[in-house]
Amino acid sequence: MKYRIPFSSKSIDYTEEEMLVIKDTITSLNILTMGNKITEFENKFENFIGKKNAFAVNSATSALELTAQLCNFKKNDEVIIPTHTYTSSCYPFIKNGAKIVWADIDLDTRVVSDESIINKLTKNTKAVVVPHLYGYFKDVRTLKEILNTKNVLLIEDAAQAIGTSIGDDKVGTFGDFSIFSFHSHKNITTLGEGGMLIVDNEEISKEIPKLRHNGHCDFDYSRNEYWKPAMGNLDISVINNEMFFPNNYCITEVQCALGSILLDRVYDINSSKRRRAIRFIEELKEFDILNFHKVDSLQHNYHLLAAYFNNHEVRDRFIELMANEEGIQCAVQYLPLNRYDFYRKLGYSDSSCQNADYFFDRMVSFPFHHRLTDNEIDQILSSTKKILKKI
Amino acid sequence: MKYRIPFSSKSIDYTEEEMLVIKDTITSLNILTMGNKITEFENKFENFIGKKNAFAVNSATSALELTAQLCNFKKNDEVIIPTHTYTSSCYPFIKNGAKIVWADIDLDTRVVSDESIINKLTKNTKAVVVPHLYGYFKDVRTLKEILNTKNVLLIEDAAQAIGTSIGDDKVGTFGDFSIFSFHSHKNITTLGEGGMLIVDNEEISKEIPKLRHNGHCDFDYSRNEYWKPAMGNLDISVINNEMFFPNNYCITEVQCALGSILLDRVYDINSSKRRRAIRFIEELKEFDILNFHKVDSLQHNYHLLAAYFNNHEVRDRFIELMANEEGIQCAVQYLPLNRYDFYRKLGYSDSSCQNADYFFDRMVSFPFHHRLTDNEIDQILSSTKKILKKI
Repeated sequence: MKYRIPFSSKSIDYTEEEMLVIKDTITSLNILTMGNKITEFENKFENFIGKKNAFAVNSATSALELTAQLCNFKKNDEVIIPTHTYTSSCYPFIKNGAKIVWADIDLDTRVVSDESIINKLTKNTKAVVVPHLYGYFKDVRTLKEILNTKNVLLIEDAAQAIGTSIGDDKVGTFGDFSIFSFHSHKNITTLGEGGMLIVDNEEISKEIPKLRHNGHCDFDYSRNEYWKPAMGNLDISVINNEMFFPNNYCITEVQCALGSILLDRVYDINSSKRRRAIRFIEELKEFDILNFHKVDSLQHNYHLLAAYFNNHEVRDRFIELMANEEGIQCAVQYLPLNRYDFYRKLGYSDSSCQNADYFFDRMVSFPFHHRLTDNEIDQILSSTKKILKKI
Repeated sequence: MKYRIPFSSKSIDYTEEEMLVIKDTITSLNILTMGNKITEFENKFENFIGKKNAFAVNSATSALELTAQLCNFKKNDEVIIPTHTYTSSCYPFIKNGAKIVWADIDLDTRVVSDESIINKLTKNTKAVVVPHLYGYFKDVRTLKEILNTKNVLLIEDAAQAIGTSIGDDKVGTFGDFSIFSFHSHKNITTLGEGGMLIVDNEEISKEIPKLRHNGHCDFDYSRNEYWKPAMGNLDISVINNEMFFPNNYCITEVQCALGSILLDRVYDINSSKRRRAIRFIEELKEFDILNFHKVDSLQHNYHLLAAYFNNHEVRDRFIELMANEEGIQCAVQYLPLNRYDFYRKLGYSDSSCQNADYFFDRMVSFPFHHRLTDNEIDQILSSTKKILKKI
């Protein structure tokens, strides 16, 4: 079926200036990967969030894979993670040897609740993953203090929440590891794929370049002849006497050059999305049946615009009519992970996460990418009102 | 030091038509990753080599990681691989549980020899990796027959050898798994990173899309309502009753669109490089001290142009004078893997690969990327003659 307004789209169109950066980078550079642009992007990102040790990689999943690898899980180690998130927040931890313990969300904020996490902490808990889902920066300040006392790692999955803050505190500055995404759908995108990893620990951060790029490193002595004993060295990362294998998570120079310039308009994009979201929510406030999460502050960038109905038959009817009568494709996100075949087959089918299940079964996600015109937003609004009155 | 002719460079400049494809793809597509362009690229690549089941990924290393993962190594399983290759041909196999057994190269062809492989075959040999190094398609036809009788997997690492053939047989069509690279330095490059995996086994090839993209797949039944039970399914790959974790090895749409059009000039680029190489070798034939590998056929694409001296002091003196007096940066490649800190620390320091050591210690690799002008090639030639006469 072809929709008048489909749900999926790249988030943004690039400006003429950004297209020129793409063109100039491709034509002028001698090396198209692992040159100066990646360092520029990382430096700019570090300034952007006010924390050092940022490492650009080819996807947020790669950043999460690196994180999971560096957690160095041993037998029985547990990772607490909400069922209500995208699979990349979770599967790298299972793959790297952790046992997953499901946490539930808060029904109002749709992100993992402190209470749910704290209830699941055991002596085996090694890490907690907090996805700032939908673009809402979940306040992790209290949680971080508790985790610190128990020596549990905090992992901020800020894939959807770039540019959000609580007061002076920027998202991604609390985690032992924090992850950002520049995937096609995210508020800014580096040609469709890309990610950033922020590492808190200095010793670990020194190993990231090797771990990212096939073990490449300099020799640990200066050479008189550049080719001896070879052009460059390869070494394995050793942290606390344990060895870590490298990977290839390199991102191209043109993606990095583009990412750098896109950082200049993150706040504009976020403001615009937030303004639209608040207006959308306001316009629909007479419909008690639909519950939005209204946050008119920098704490939410409204990467996505989601709401839940009071009952799921009405939700289903709404999506159906929006699609069939109005040509507008609404979506449901994110199926609680424990309900996918993937996690069921791995023995993670039971979650007891009632809020996540309740929310998912009643939720609707509106088309809300930044490329939508004001007119399209108006169409979605008027269609929504029309269908809501009908049902 | 700044060189008149440095060794490293991206291989090619893109034509106006190719730049237009980049621009049009970025501006016109709604989805910048995992759309139609990846399928188009794969289909075109399948036609290009005349074998199906081609899968585009974000790097050749990712293709090798997938290969290593799918070998499904058990305790004591061995992989035979030459010491003389790039590290990505090797480390994914160790990382995925195999024991490495080093093989030696043939001194004339600089690629692994059948004899060396056959001598190392044991009842534990699970796979053999054949890198078609420097762009030379190592004839694997006899080897393949032997490996078939012993149920040993053949892995063709054709990262450097795109477009080569022996008679009607194209490189990459023999392997149980075959790998191509579109890295910045390769004869064609998809913006600096990119790779292709060819899978021989039909059952395994069906699992690659899931393994490449976080476990994403369709539901195995048709749905009346597109959002129920969710927008899409996630599943784990099961092959011969064993589970395989997914990865994120996705490549962007613009890289795929570019890769597609670049396939149209692989043969032109290869011919041009081969013509230059043959001329270079011919012009230097009076210098007995320098040993090239002259192959004036489609079997060699001369991705790189390498030679070895009869003794290594002369080689060192040559590189030094080329750099310091002529401003031309020659390189040495590839340090036998067993001599890197990386492999030493993993217990692989002993190789007994005398040819690889002999060759590496005496070899020189000339700047030879396709962007070099005829004039620059002439400069390298005349400088080479001058320095060779001097030493």
